Amino acid sequence: MRPSSNVKRMKPSHFYPVILAGGSGTRFWPLSRERFPKHLLPLIGEETLLQQTVRRASKVGPIDHVRIVTTAVQAEAVRLQLWEWKDELADHVLLEPEGRNTAPAVGLAALRLLRRDPEATMLVLPADHVVKGEAQFKRAVALGYRLAQQGHVVTFGVHPTRAETGYGYIRPNTRCCLGTSGKLGGYTIARFVEKPDQKTVRRYVQSGKYLWNSGMFVWRADVLIEECARHQPKLLKGLQAIDGMIEAGQPDAKLARRYKQLESLSIDYGVMERSTRAAVVPVDFSWSDVGSWGNLEEVIPGNEHGNVVRGNVIEVDSEKSVLFGSKRLVGCIGLSGMLVVDTTDATLICPKSRAQDVKALVEIFRKQRIPERLEHATVHRPWGWYTVLEEGKDYKVKRISVLPGQRLSLQMHHRRSEHWVVIAGTARVTRGKKIFRLSLGESTMIPEQTKHRLENPGKVPLEIIEVQRGTYVGEDDIIRYADEYGRNRNPSP
Amino acid sequence: MRPSSNVKRMKPSHFYPVILAGGSGTRFWPLSRERFPKHLLPLIGEETLLQQTVRRASKVGPIDHVRIVTTAVQAEAVRLQLWEWKDELADHVLLEPEGRNTAPAVGLAALRLLRRDPEATMLVLPADHVVKGEAQFKRAVALGYRLAQQGHVVTFGVHPTRAETGYGYIRPNTRCCLGTSGKLGGYTIARFVEKPDQKTVRRYVQSGKYLWNSGMFVWRADVLIEECARHQPKLLKGLQAIDGMIEAGQPDAKLARRYKQLESLSIDYGVMERSTRAAVVPVDFSWSDVGSWGNLEEVIPGNEHGNVVRGNVIEVDSEKSVLFGSKRLVGCIGLSGMLVVDTTDATLICPKSRAQDVKALVEIFRKQRIPERLEHATVHRPWGWYTVLEEGKDYKVKRISVLPGQRLSLQMHHRRSEHWVVIAGTARVTRGKKIFRLSLGESTMIPEQTKHRLENPGKVPLEIIEVQRGTYVGEDDIIRYADEYGRNRNPSP
Repeated sequence: MRPSSNVKRMKPSHFYPVILAGGSGTRFWPLSRERFPKHLLPLIGEETLLQQTVRRASKVGPIDHVRIVTTAVQAEAVRLQLWEWKDELADHVLLEPEGRNTAPAVGLAALRLLRRDPEATMLVLPADHVVKGEAQFKRAVALGYRLAQQGHVVTFGVHPTRAETGYGYIRPNTRCCLGTSGKLGGYTIARFVEKPDQKTVRRYVQSGKYLWNSGMFVWRADVLIEECARHQPKLLKGLQAIDGMIEAGQPDAKLARRYKQLESLSIDYGVMERSTRAAVVPVDFSWSDVGSWGNLEEVIPGNEHGNVVRGNVIEVDSEKSVLFGSKRLVGCIGLSGMLVVDTTDATLICPKSRAQDVKALVEIFRKQRIPERLEHATVHRPWGWYTVLEEGKDYKVKRISVLPGQRLSLQMHHRRSEHWVVIAGTARVTRGKKIFRLSLGESTMIPEQTKHRLENPGKVPLEIIEVQRGTYVGEDDIIRYADEYGRNRNPSP
Repeated sequence: MRPSSNVKRMKPSHFYPVILAGGSGTRFWPLSRERFPKHLLPLIGEETLLQQTVRRASKVGPIDHVRIVTTAVQAEAVRLQLWEWKDELADHVLLEPEGRNTAPAVGLAALRLLRRDPEATMLVLPADHVVKGEAQFKRAVALGYRLAQQGHVVTFGVHPTRAETGYGYIRPNTRCCLGTSGKLGGYTIARFVEKPDQKTVRRYVQSGKYLWNSGMFVWRADVLIEECARHQPKLLKGLQAIDGMIEAGQPDAKLARRYKQLESLSIDYGVMERSTRAAVVPVDFSWSDVGSWGNLEEVIPGNEHGNVVRGNVIEVDSEKSVLFGSKRLVGCIGLSGMLVVDTTDATLICPKSRAQDVKALVEIFRKQRIPERLEHATVHRPWGWYTVLEEGKDYKVKRISVLPGQRLSLQMHHRRSEHWVVIAGTARVTRGKKIFRLSLGESTMIPEQTKHRLENPGKVPLEIIEVQRGTYVGEDDIIRYADEYGRNRNPSP
């Protein structure tokens, strides 16, 4: 049976891949940051995990049916990464005011879909998983889709490859087959076990009778809402209120207040494990959730010395180590089983066996209000991005990249002047009442308390070096008079 | 006996501390660089080892008698570090075209001193040693001076504290005392042993009869030259030729060619070990040559977990490690016996037990022509220094600091324009035929192929951000029309 024949039987007109791109990036610090989680990273290959997930989703459903659920702080980075699909996806990014685990994200996505299509079937895909085997993936989704049409809430189960205590385990009723597709079968579920202890896990893995709960699901949106009504009525009520507020165009701040009241809950624990309609499709594609630096080698094989080496790293006599460099030169000698991750503004060094503790380290940063936990030196904005090259008490130097056709807000700073030098492309500059072009190699100065705007009227990216000078150079010294992106008072340029 | 009484007996009018500040900085990479060796680093305390050595020398001889021997590539960094003593020392820095080990440096210094003072006595101090105990140091120098007046070539011997195979060992004739000062005695030498094997070293250390050769010496300049004539006549002939060339004001390039022909030789091996006039003063001050990262803890004690931590480092559960951060955040978890050194443009990670291999790593960099082995992101110039903040194919961003009263050369670039923004102090700018002031927060643009000059006419440091833009931004695109510092064709701005 050719996989495409399965896909054809999934009615694309009612099929919606929903990609969960929330979460906070603590476990892959310093490559990930709280506001720049793992799915935004090109961990494997040239594309980020989010882009790979969108591409994967587009193989099983129409691209303009893809929905992305993310949090407000990631909105700009996510939009930038979806640039290739901006025409199809621009209106399909659902912003949570903050992450409240998967149940609110999935539930809200279901409510939003049902307004458009009462027959909607959702394929839920976390944006930060690594899946290999397109044909196998398509086949599993097709089978899941069929079971969903029968009213099941379906999870995909992965055959365990190690005694991992961090996952949920599923025991399928293998004598109760709900349907097949090639060698795959779908089953009802005998039991769920959430994060069992080491001893139990070892027994499960040896028995061969248990599966990992992959966190990927397929169900009809209306069935999911029925199950929410049964098992999480309070959460559903909250989500319905929020859905109504979005529909009525209520302000973000009001939405955020209501969202904060929702219980933070996983869809597995909140709904799947309680539902009598749960089913599982054991999959035969390669899967990893790359849960921390320690799992990296599941998806990136080491070289002949067992090292995974990237970026500007020179190593001597090292083995079994993950050495991620960036631009800066990193020299390593005689490392064994170590993890080294270097970025522009922060570096991590620890034994691979301690990779789980990266989360604890970031928690220390949080308590000490260390900014490198939150964002990279490069910060994304709706018009492009900027990188802080140097910051002093009374000056700051940035490289600013403006995407073609985009422009920053019309703005003014009370306490700093800005000097712009164009190093790529052409700028249109508003300075006070004047509007003029600034070509490659030209520069201009924006005095303090002067209205100004930077635009890229061209077809290629505009890059400028900005030197800020003043008695205060914080991002919050900004008055916005006009903005393309609905930003008015929040402190971003 | 008070130490000062000893010092008084050293006739200051004929006593010259000669500081050897040559060498290349491979063992302390990345804090040191080939052109920025260990003695230029503030390894202990706020002052660099060179500054500490000058201060130590100034306690035993008049400051304007101090002589510094360094190599041409370090000249600007050395001059900058001697800023405090610029009036006394400006004319007393002897530049070797390149390092040829200690014998040529010491021999040339002796010849130069003899031209000024035929009765000169030299105290030779390497610039990168750590000495603790001022009174003990003064006493040892005073005794050494007395033996030098008797015609001895005197070395200072250190009581071994470990079985170090990297040093030379000395066995004094303790039954043949040449003189005393308090508890110190000076002795003739039974034998020198250069870098003995591990087994021999262990026997030496256990016997208590051997001393380390510290590399610090005292002798009359005329006696040293006599000994050179006896044991290294060819080297002496070369040095006399060079001394003559310096006296005649011959060009640097000619000097450099002649210098290259000199044998690269240590004064220990070339003269001390062969001389019948050798003597040793066993010292009672604390001494370390901090030979590599592995010796750091001799001079910087660890905290309660045995860690030496500096800069922006946050560590969890680490022990017995050296963690040197800089501005960038470095997070460490669970390290044991590790060495982590982070700088603006390069980072080193290795077990402390492999610290000796840093030299081998830098050798790999040399073969691969990796620039980070040579210089820091911050480069010293006679007028101040600059730091490269960012470099692209066709642009470069620098922070430039110009010392009060200093100015860059009058220069021109063929293929780049430069944009200057003043972030501290006031500049005087020459641009084409115009000369004007540029105040804090002001900016100007120097078009390509335009003569220009940057000066600091003020009393406080001038800092500017320079953005270079052009088809080529290498340091060698420069035409110099006038320069305060005798630089005309060499590629530095």
